[in-house]
Amino acid sequence: MDAQKLKGFRDYLPEQARLRRQIINTLYNEATLAGFLPIDTPALEYSETLLGQGGEETDKEVYSFEDHGGRKVALRFDLTVPFARFVAENLNELPLPFKKVQAGEVWRGEKPQKGRYRQFCQADVDIVGADSIEADVEVIGLLAGTMARVLAEPRLNISTEKQQFIMSVGHRHLLGALIKKTLPNVADNNEHRVLIALDKLTKIGREKVATLLQEIPGADAAGATTLLDYLLTKDATGASDLEALRAMLPESAQPMLKRFAETIELLRRQFKAFPAANIVADLSIARGLGYYTGVVFETFLTALPGFGSISSGGRYNDLVARFIKQDLPSVGGSIGVDRLLAGIEQLQAPSAQREHGVFIAMATEDAREYAFAMLRELRDQGIMTDIAVKTGKLGNQFKFADKRGYQGVITVGTDEVNQKTFSLKNLATGQEEKNAARADLVKKVRGIFA
Amino acid sequence: MDAQKLKGFRDYLPEQARLRRQIINTLYNEATLAGFLPIDTPALEYSETLLGQGGEETDKEVYSFEDHGGRKVALRFDLTVPFARFVAENLNELPLPFKKVQAGEVWRGEKPQKGRYRQFCQADVDIVGADSIEADVEVIGLLAGTMARVLAEPRLNISTEKQQFIMSVGHRHLLGALIKKTLPNVADNNEHRVLIALDKLTKIGREKVATLLQEIPGADAAGATTLLDYLLTKDATGASDLEALRAMLPESAQPMLKRFAETIELLRRQFKAFPAANIVADLSIARGLGYYTGVVFETFLTALPGFGSISSGGRYNDLVARFIKQDLPSVGGSIGVDRLLAGIEQLQAPSAQREHGVFIAMATEDAREYAFAMLRELRDQGIMTDIAVKTGKLGNQFKFADKRGYQGVITVGTDEVNQKTFSLKNLATGQEEKNAARADLVKKVRGIFA
Repeated sequence: MDAQKLKGFRDYLPEQARLRRQIINTLYNEATLAGFLPIDTPALEYSETLLGQGGEETDKEVYSFEDHGGRKVALRFDLTVPFARFVAENLNELPLPFKKVQAGEVWRGEKPQKGRYRQFCQADVDIVGADSIEADVEVIGLLAGTMARVLAEPRLNISTEKQQFIMSVGHRHLLGALIKKTLPNVADNNEHRVLIALDKLTKIGREKVATLLQEIPGADAAGATTLLDYLLTKDATGASDLEALRAMLPESAQPMLKRFAETIELLRRQFKAFPAANIVADLSIARGLGYYTGVVFETFLTALPGFGSISSGGRYNDLVARFIKQDLPSVGGSIGVDRLLAGIEQLQAPSAQREHGVFIAMATEDAREYAFAMLRELRDQGIMTDIAVKTGKLGNQFKFADKRGYQGVITVGTDEVNQKTFSLKNLATGQEEKNAARADLVKKVRGIFA
Repeated sequence: MDAQKLKGFRDYLPEQARLRRQIINTLYNEATLAGFLPIDTPALEYSETLLGQGGEETDKEVYSFEDHGGRKVALRFDLTVPFARFVAENLNELPLPFKKVQAGEVWRGEKPQKGRYRQFCQADVDIVGADSIEADVEVIGLLAGTMARVLAEPRLNISTEKQQFIMSVGHRHLLGALIKKTLPNVADNNEHRVLIALDKLTKIGREKVATLLQEIPGADAAGATTLLDYLLTKDATGASDLEALRAMLPESAQPMLKRFAETIELLRRQFKAFPAANIVADLSIARGLGYYTGVVFETFLTALPGFGSISSGGRYNDLVARFIKQDLPSVGGSIGVDRLLAGIEQLQAPSAQREHGVFIAMATEDAREYAFAMLRELRDQGIMTDIAVKTGKLGNQFKFADKRGYQGVITVGTDEVNQKTFSLKNLATGQEEKNAARADLVKKVRGIFA
């Protein structure tokens, strides 16, 4: 039979899988430190739970089928919609406001493209039951802090300059107020068409978006020009001019703008300690998914223009209300784990560093018990220790240890067992010590990593 | 719309999700220390990759359907079969022998039963490309060490006695030789029927298994009695008598028995440091899945008789060869993460321990910036710090902190901001310090955890 992964899907080789876990674990660690709690939900849900939430495009991409009992079921396309279902179903068990962290696989039957797959991992934080600056700052700040820490991890070997990223934070309702102001004759129920057009700005450019806008009933060329002028005028940091916006918006929108400005300011103060995280107000952020109601954000690696967003999210005050008659305003965001992974693979410089690990080679089979006792002792000291599981020629065992990237090789055989010794080679320097005393094992091995 | 998870599936509340991650992370940590490398494969595979590998029962339970391109696809029912596909497809990228660790969700459309769900998590280690005692010991030892560490985690509050588990290690081919000896007239192609019957020993008992055995062509009552007598006679530790087996088996099976005995002995020596791990030879272990060829094992929590296995696996020398013309003998095993989780929930004693965390309550909104600066400082010191995301009455903020289980509450308001102070209450003792100096923040908070 052919060994073939499913079309549109991917395997993760060890270095990729390691990095993926590192991203996810960093988010969990940061989130735990901030009082977020982990939850998990199933990959499959009733189709009706998922459909109609992410917009028509998303619905078409959902994997849905009938299960063994003839139920219509679907694989989740994000973690947010199932989370809203989870909150409604488990509300009595949760402390409110509820801060959650969750990483998991999601599935979308998109057209396969270079670097895009039909299964990918999202790592989310959300806060349910609070509509506050504090909640918005916690969610966005946590994601920014996590990305800054991941990119700075020494093993990845990414230069300080290439670690830079921009988190562009917009606001769905402020953008709505600006649309109302500049295109007053577009009916409310056509606002989503304006948003869809604006969402394509980076992809298709200003002129084509202007054309799309003018196809919307009630939109005029002059209004579209004013709108696009504002959205595309940024300062040197990529930020929208909030003072100019204040002048354009009516009195009713000013409290929302004040809150937005304070959110941005608090976030910027939080990230003085993380110079890689550049947080800017950017009103042109529209976001594709249909359920956002307040702040929205996207994140871009500065060194990879055109690469697309690695983290996004926003406030969704009405989503949970679909399942339960209770006002549970929410805010949340995802790190696109696979997008960040792909970005890191492009940013990192090669490293010749060996793994701080040691490999036990066996010259003779009668050393097996002796070797396993050494292994136990080293691992109990937290030292990465591998052992030949395919014995035979010593030369082949050394070749394996070298290929695997370990820094040290211990050799034991009949003589070493009888004399209670071992030999230790440092593969980085080529130096080898013979007849080291068994009692000095841990000390000697630590010595080659020093 | 009703908030309803899919029938047969489950949600994980925070304490369950935390424990699940702890089990998985412990395995990854132990495995990394032992030189195992992480990989990941997709949840979906071509149906033909998965079907026909786990036996008929398993095939019926597989979730299979057509994808958007009309391909026949299926959700994986274990991690082993997709791993064999992965190895064949990525062979040139892997160091051989290849030691891998992987945790992931799997799906089986089983009849819903109490405590059994249609999606569950397996955490696997495997070694591909080595048929050796070393490989068998590494895999089984790593799983045993992981379970011992998980069960001993102080936060779980499981008594030393209840941490005990038995890993019963059998051998498919030694059992085959024993069947050949005791039921010589059963044809080779009916051996699997004997194995299936023996696999039911703990479920349906000796008498019913004896009846099943006698329905197999060539099986006689006397032979069945001798076979069952041997398999059901154990010493006080639950172990089969390997000396008695040596006397029963022909010369040709003796090297296999010698290797098996040495494997058990090496494992027992490894676990002197883990008194909870009891590793015993048990020839009655048959295992349900069709692909095993050497050692096989199951793991039982001593304090929960009848609970079923929490970890199992074995040697599968022929599985990878299904995809590639190369001899890649393999051994592997899984921790049933959800089974272990359910076991722990039954074993743990309640604990009144509060979380070593602090909650920042805000008396007034003008303290927001001051509060966020404190939060940043505390988190940068690795102290779990939460903040009120829903302000309002202070009393409600304290109630939330208490419900959430934090040990400390910091309060800040206009006065504290002006005087550069804060107050700190220890919820465990009820003691509160007012007007503490802002500069002493970290020291004071560490003080309440001491």
